[in-house]
Amino acid sequence: MATPVSPLAVALPELPPLAGVRLGSTAAGIRYQGRTDLVMMEVAAGSTVAGVFTANKCPGAPVDWCRASLKGGRARMVVVNAGNANVFTGKAGRDACAATAAAAAKLGDCQPRQVFVASTGVIGEVLPHEKLVAALPRLHETLTEDGWEAAARGIMTTDTFPKAATRTAQIGDGTVRITGIAKGSGMIAPDMATMLCFIFTDAKIPADALQTMLKKGVDASFNCTTVDSDTSTSDTVLLIATGQAKHPRIPSADGSAARGRMLADFSRALNDLLLDLALKVVRDGEGAQKLVRIDVTGAKTPRSAKKIAMAVANSPLVKTAIAGEDANWGRIVMAVGKSGEPADRDRLSVGVGGVWMAKDGGVVPGYDEAPVVAHMRGKEVEIAIDIGLGRGKATAWTCDLTHGYIDINGSYRS
Amino acid sequence: MATPVSPLAVALPELPPLAGVRLGSTAAGIRYQGRTDLVMMEVAAGSTVAGVFTANKCPGAPVDWCRASLKGGRARMVVVNAGNANVFTGKAGRDACAATAAAAAKLGDCQPRQVFVASTGVIGEVLPHEKLVAALPRLHETLTEDGWEAAARGIMTTDTFPKAATRTAQIGDGTVRITGIAKGSGMIAPDMATMLCFIFTDAKIPADALQTMLKKGVDASFNCTTVDSDTSTSDTVLLIATGQAKHPRIPSADGSAARGRMLADFSRALNDLLLDLALKVVRDGEGAQKLVRIDVTGAKTPRSAKKIAMAVANSPLVKTAIAGEDANWGRIVMAVGKSGEPADRDRLSVGVGGVWMAKDGGVVPGYDEAPVVAHMRGKEVEIAIDIGLGRGKATAWTCDLTHGYIDINGSYRS
Repeated sequence: MATPVSPLAVALPELPPLAGVRLGSTAAGIRYQGRTDLVMMEVAAGSTVAGVFTANKCPGAPVDWCRASLKGGRARMVVVNAGNANVFTGKAGRDACAATAAAAAKLGDCQPRQVFVASTGVIGEVLPHEKLVAALPRLHETLTEDGWEAAARGIMTTDTFPKAATRTAQIGDGTVRITGIAKGSGMIAPDMATMLCFIFTDAKIPADALQTMLKKGVDASFNCTTVDSDTSTSDTVLLIATGQAKHPRIPSADGSAARGRMLADFSRALNDLLLDLALKVVRDGEGAQKLVRIDVTGAKTPRSAKKIAMAVANSPLVKTAIAGEDANWGRIVMAVGKSGEPADRDRLSVGVGGVWMAKDGGVVPGYDEAPVVAHMRGKEVEIAIDIGLGRGKATAWTCDLTHGYIDINGSYRS
Repeated sequence: MATPVSPLAVALPELPPLAGVRLGSTAAGIRYQGRTDLVMMEVAAGSTVAGVFTANKCPGAPVDWCRASLKGGRARMVVVNAGNANVFTGKAGRDACAATAAAAAKLGDCQPRQVFVASTGVIGEVLPHEKLVAALPRLHETLTEDGWEAAARGIMTTDTFPKAATRTAQIGDGTVRITGIAKGSGMIAPDMATMLCFIFTDAKIPADALQTMLKKGVDASFNCTTVDSDTSTSDTVLLIATGQAKHPRIPSADGSAARGRMLADFSRALNDLLLDLALKVVRDGEGAQKLVRIDVTGAKTPRSAKKIAMAVANSPLVKTAIAGEDANWGRIVMAVGKSGEPADRDRLSVGVGGVWMAKDGGVVPGYDEAPVVAHMRGKEVEIAIDIGLGRGKATAWTCDLTHGYIDINGSYRS
């Protein structure tokens, strides 16, 4: 399938080395031919790790493996394959995870539970892990601190462009770096995370502090995005801290005010990076032609605002209208109403591209459609909804629903 | 827009006169040109009425009007227009309902609150009710007991075929008839009803008994169907009893065992008719090429089973796979898991067309894809899901998601 690159694609940023991380990719021939499909990321001994995973009740074997491994709080290796999700594969799936971890642990001179595995691709086919395991030693020899782009490309499935982001942050007088890679791009309604996202920092941060920051950051980024309302069985976000940068020591007690202050800038940079990656996933949503931002204000509570924003973001009728460049605010009103959240038709306002089209239960008198039509023709569409009941607000991001989505997903066993 | 007739279309059944009902349609030129768009249904004086309406929190003015009128329990006239939904039109919308009811009441020699109004079509445009009101007297003169097909066609919007069903039932030694008409066919995830459905019987049944039976019947029919997960602001189902048939008197006390026994056959016939109409709406779902039935068994509770069935029915990835004739049970597993209901990956079974493909967390050994592939090529697809946890079961119906849906909804202001 030769899917053209998303018109919303953004270039890969420059990704400088990050102390304590070496990565690389190879073609293990698991499913795809003529492209890399196996990625290894090795981190310095003693690295701490945090993770959030799919809320899907039928998770894949790799998610189970990672959840169990996370208890140790330490990571040394991450092994990812693309093309086969190793989901709903029973005992064979569990065996594949254990065998992969054992083989990687030998190469990394660590415990198997310090190896994190992730798989993405077709559900329900047994992962030929012997091919994967056979490719690991050769792959391990090629790992390099310059392997970021190779890794970002090696984890792609129906993605049309590689996704990465990098930030720096201050911890006391020390500067640390955070770099992450991610993939999408269908089955995206992350309830904990997106398909796959791996983030590294050279900061030295205890695992529990990483976990708190990651959970909060994912809630405000990946969990506010949707491509098609379907929640993958493989969603995984890992955050690994190699501890190689020089900065004042982070106290180990969680929740202390001093620790919070020390990590404030790191947390800000992490949130910013997570949102950057999440929006890149939406930009590569299957068939996406437009990136859509939905700002809800005036809801009863922030939680209510988020539910309304996601109901609009998931509405097929809103998304097809956007694909048709139609500022169809009637469908937006419908989607607000179907969310089930408190809303009063006669206090509701809807705007597009900065122009209020409907207010207080009807069309704005003298409303001029011209600037709205022009805005709808662009690649980025902004929808504003004021509920008029309270102070709750939230933002969600999605893409439009186009023929491309049907093309990609209506063909046999994509 | 020349949308071809749905390949799942079924012919209109023969619709004999029903004592106490006269109907007809006319072209009022409200939005559509060259077709009927205004329907009037007049019922005998003393007719009782029940209704269920959309759960959307931003309902249209006609829904508000009907809810208020329902308190009286009596109906004389129903006036329906297609092309303009009279939703989110503020005071103008309320005025349009009141003016329509007043004009129709004069013609029907009844109170305005005995007139029920319904509108379907574009949201957010003021209904030109003066055109509608002007067309009523002429329309009233043409009402006939043979106007069923005209009425079924006059309420269509993006529907590609008219929808009606008729049944007979015994009440004691008396035979009564139930006839209904309905329209779809996008914005269909009825949480109380479908877009519009009008059902008449010549039985003489108190309004409270009608309401009980209608609510129950709609829950087991329309509320188990979905086209696109979007819940309309106009969903309305009315059930009107003209009391013209001869049968033993129904006692007025609700819930009595004697009354339940007397209405058992009527209730059965009503449920059957509601399901018939609901499936016709799904068959005319926008872009539908296949009718899909999803049977869930073994869930913890019936409520849990229904949530799972609807999660599968609403999954874009399941629906596009069906459009592509791909028995992609991995996507079905994903949809079960995303429902959030209790499920155990390792007890789950998935079958298509009577063949179990996956059992106990993996592919069935020696599974032969040939009969499944043949089944997927047909127009009706049956999916079976056994959760393996309890005895809760439920069935949901949907259609596939095709390019046709994008064509219809991605064009300007459909």
